[in-house]
Amino acid sequence: MSEVYAARRTRLRERCNAGGSAAALVSRPANVRYLAGAAPHGAVLLLGRTEDLLVCSGSPDDRPTQGRPDESLPVRALSGPGGDPAVAATDLAADQGAESLATEDHHLTVVRHRAMRSVAPALRLTDLGQAVEQLRVVKDEEEISCLRIGAEIADQALGELLESILVGRTERHLALELERRLVDHGADGPAFPTSVGTGPNSGRRGHRPTDRRVEEGDFLSVCLGATYRGYRCEIGRTFVIGTSPADWQIELYDLVFSAQRAGREALAPGAACRDVDRAARQPLDSAGYAEHLPALTGHGVGLEIDEDPQLAPAAMGKLDACVPVTVEPGVHLPGRGGVRIDDTLVVRPEADGGPELLTITTKELLAL
Amino acid sequence: MSEVYAARRTRLRERCNAGGSAAALVSRPANVRYLAGAAPHGAVLLLGRTEDLLVCSGSPDDRPTQGRPDESLPVRALSGPGGDPAVAATDLAADQGAESLATEDHHLTVVRHRAMRSVAPALRLTDLGQAVEQLRVVKDEEEISCLRIGAEIADQALGELLESILVGRTERHLALELERRLVDHGADGPAFPTSVGTGPNSGRRGHRPTDRRVEEGDFLSVCLGATYRGYRCEIGRTFVIGTSPADWQIELYDLVFSAQRAGREALAPGAACRDVDRAARQPLDSAGYAEHLPALTGHGVGLEIDEDPQLAPAAMGKLDACVPVTVEPGVHLPGRGGVRIDDTLVVRPEADGGPELLTITTKELLAL
Repeated sequence: MSEVYAARRTRLRERCNAGGSAAALVSRPANVRYLAGAAPHGAVLLLGRTEDLLVCSGSPDDRPTQGRPDESLPVRALSGPGGDPAVAATDLAADQGAESLATEDHHLTVVRHRAMRSVAPALRLTDLGQAVEQLRVVKDEEEISCLRIGAEIADQALGELLESILVGRTERHLALELERRLVDHGADGPAFPTSVGTGPNSGRRGHRPTDRRVEEGDFLSVCLGATYRGYRCEIGRTFVIGTSPADWQIELYDLVFSAQRAGREALAPGAACRDVDRAARQPLDSAGYAEHLPALTGHGVGLEIDEDPQLAPAAMGKLDACVPVTVEPGVHLPGRGGVRIDDTLVVRPEADGGPELLTITTKELLAL
Repeated sequence: MSEVYAARRTRLRERCNAGGSAAALVSRPANVRYLAGAAPHGAVLLLGRTEDLLVCSGSPDDRPTQGRPDESLPVRALSGPGGDPAVAATDLAADQGAESLATEDHHLTVVRHRAMRSVAPALRLTDLGQAVEQLRVVKDEEEISCLRIGAEIADQALGELLESILVGRTERHLALELERRLVDHGADGPAFPTSVGTGPNSGRRGHRPTDRRVEEGDFLSVCLGATYRGYRCEIGRTFVIGTSPADWQIELYDLVFSAQRAGREALAPGAACRDVDRAARQPLDSAGYAEHLPALTGHGVGLEIDEDPQLAPAAMGKLDACVPVTVEPGVHLPGRGGVRIDDTLVVRPEADGGPELLTITTKELLAL
C-alpha cells in the first residue's frame, strides 16, 4: 500500500510545483489520511522541499490512530503536550529552505494560521485550496472495494432489521439497532448518524430519530451507512407499515422511485453534475413538489460522507469514471411524511456496464 | 429561559464593549447554543450595534436544530442554499454602522475570515478570543441540573451492564450496549464515543473498542457519558473479571483510587488547577508511574465534553464554585493493562458540603 500513498503525494507535489510552491502542509484529517494512510489526532503532513514528514502531537492522550500509516513515511512526534503540529511543521518547512508553503486555508483557523506565520515570518504562506479534495474525487479500485464492502454491510444490517417486528418500536431504538448490526458485520462504525423517520417524520433528509413509535399505516424511512477502512457509503429506503398502503403513499412512492431511477440512469462519465440533478429533480418538480425538494439530489462519498461532486442545480463540472456518488431524491410533506430513496453508485462507462450499484437492497415498495 | 440567554448576551456585550468592539460574531456551535438556546447547523449569532440576530443557513437540508431557540431572539435565514451565515452577518454588522466586529478567530477558518473581510472592507475585524468559553466555565444551577441528570443516566446504564454476563463479549458490543442504554434512559445520545478496554487495553484513555473479548482475570475499564439537553458528563470505572483479582491488580487499583480521591479532595473554590492536578498525580508519580500518566488528570465539562479548566501540570488559573470538572487519573502499563477512575464533580465551597459528586457508581474494586 505504501506505493499508493507515495504516488498520491507525488501527484499533489506536482500540483503544488505547478502552482509555484515547493512545499505544502496538509492539515484536514481526511486529506492527511488519504496521503499518509492514517491520521493520528491532530497530525499534519508536510510535503517538504527535501522530505515528507508526518508531524504528530506529543500528547500521550491522543486517540489512537485510525488507519494503517504508510511505513515509508517518516514520523516526527512533538516532544511535549500542547504544541501544534501545524506550527512545528511550518518551522520544519522553513528549516528545509522552502520560500513558500501552501496551506489548507479552508481548514486552518485564523489563530493557527497566525501562529504559523509568526514562527516563520520569512516564509510566504499561500493557499493550497481544495487540491487534495480534488485528487480524492476519482477513486482507485482499492478504494471502491472498501466502499463495496461497506455497502454490503449496510445492506445486511438493513435486511436483518426488515425481518424483525417494527410496530411499536421507537425511531431511536431502530437507529441504535441498525448501528449495532453495522458493527456486528464488521464496520468500523456508522458512516454518519443513522436516520430513522416514521409517519410525519418519514422522508426528511437527516432526520434525527425521536421517541415516536412505528404505527400501522406509517411510512418508515431509514438512511444508514457503514464506514469500512475509513470509506463511507450510504443507503436510504422507505417502507410502508401494514398490509395495504394508501393510494397517496403508492403514488408518492412511485414518483420518487422514478425520479431516483432517472438520476441513476443519468450517471455517466462526462455527464454534467447539474444534468444528473435535473434528471432526478424534474419528475418531482413537474408533479408539483418543487418546494418540498432538497437542495441537492446526490453527492460524492469516500473518506467523508459528503464529498465532491455535488449533484445540485448550480453544480459545476462533469462526472468522471470511478467517482462514487449517492442518488437520493426525496419528497417530504410537512405533517404527512414522505419518501426518500438513496443509493451509492460508482460512475462507470457504458462499455463496462454503466453505473455500478453498490447498495443492492430492493427498491420495491415493501409493506412490512 | 429566554431571560437566561439575554443575560448571557448582555455579559458578552459588556466584555466586547470593554474591549473596544461594539459588535461581535459568535460562530462556534457550542457558543451559539450557549447564547441563543440552540445552534441550527451553520448558524451564527450576531451581537449587533442595534440588535442581536441569529443568522441561519438557507439550505432546507440542514440538520434539525438541537436545543430550544430563545424565542425573543430574531432569526434571519439566508434566502438560498450555499451562502455563509458568517459572511451575511458581517454584512449586517456593517449595515448597522459598526466600525469593528469581534470574531472567534480560534474557530473561523482563514477562508471564511477572508470572505468576511471582503464583504465589508471598511469593518475592522478583531479577535473575540475565548470570551464565550470563559463565560461558560461557571455554570448556573439549571446547567448543573442537566449535568446531574446526565450523570444519573450514565450511572444507570453502567449499573445495568454490571448485572449482565460479561465474559466472552467484545469491547465493541459492550460499548454499543452502553450507548443503547444511555438513550433508553433518556439521554440525547452519548456525550463522546464510549470507551471499553479489556485486558491489555484496560486503563487507556480514549481507547477505541476492538473485537477483543472479555476474559477471566482481565481488568475491564469503561468510560461513558450521557448528553442531556446538550450537557455532557463523564464517568469511568475499572473492574476485575473473575473471583480473585491478582495482587498486582489490587495494588494498582488501590493506588489509582487513592490518587483519584486526592484529586477529588483538592477541589475547592480558589484552588489552583495545577495543584489539583498535582494532588492526583503525585501518588502515581511517587509509585514510579511517571511515564505512564496522561497529560491531564481532569477537565471541565458542559456543552462540550472537554472544556476549560484543564487540570494539568502547566495549567494556569484557579477553580471557582459551580465549575463542573472530571477527576480521572489512570495508569496504563503497555502489554498488561491498567486502571482508570473518572468522576464528574461540581466545585462547591466547604460550607455547602464541598465538591458535589455527580457520578455515584461505587468505586470499590468490583470482581464481576
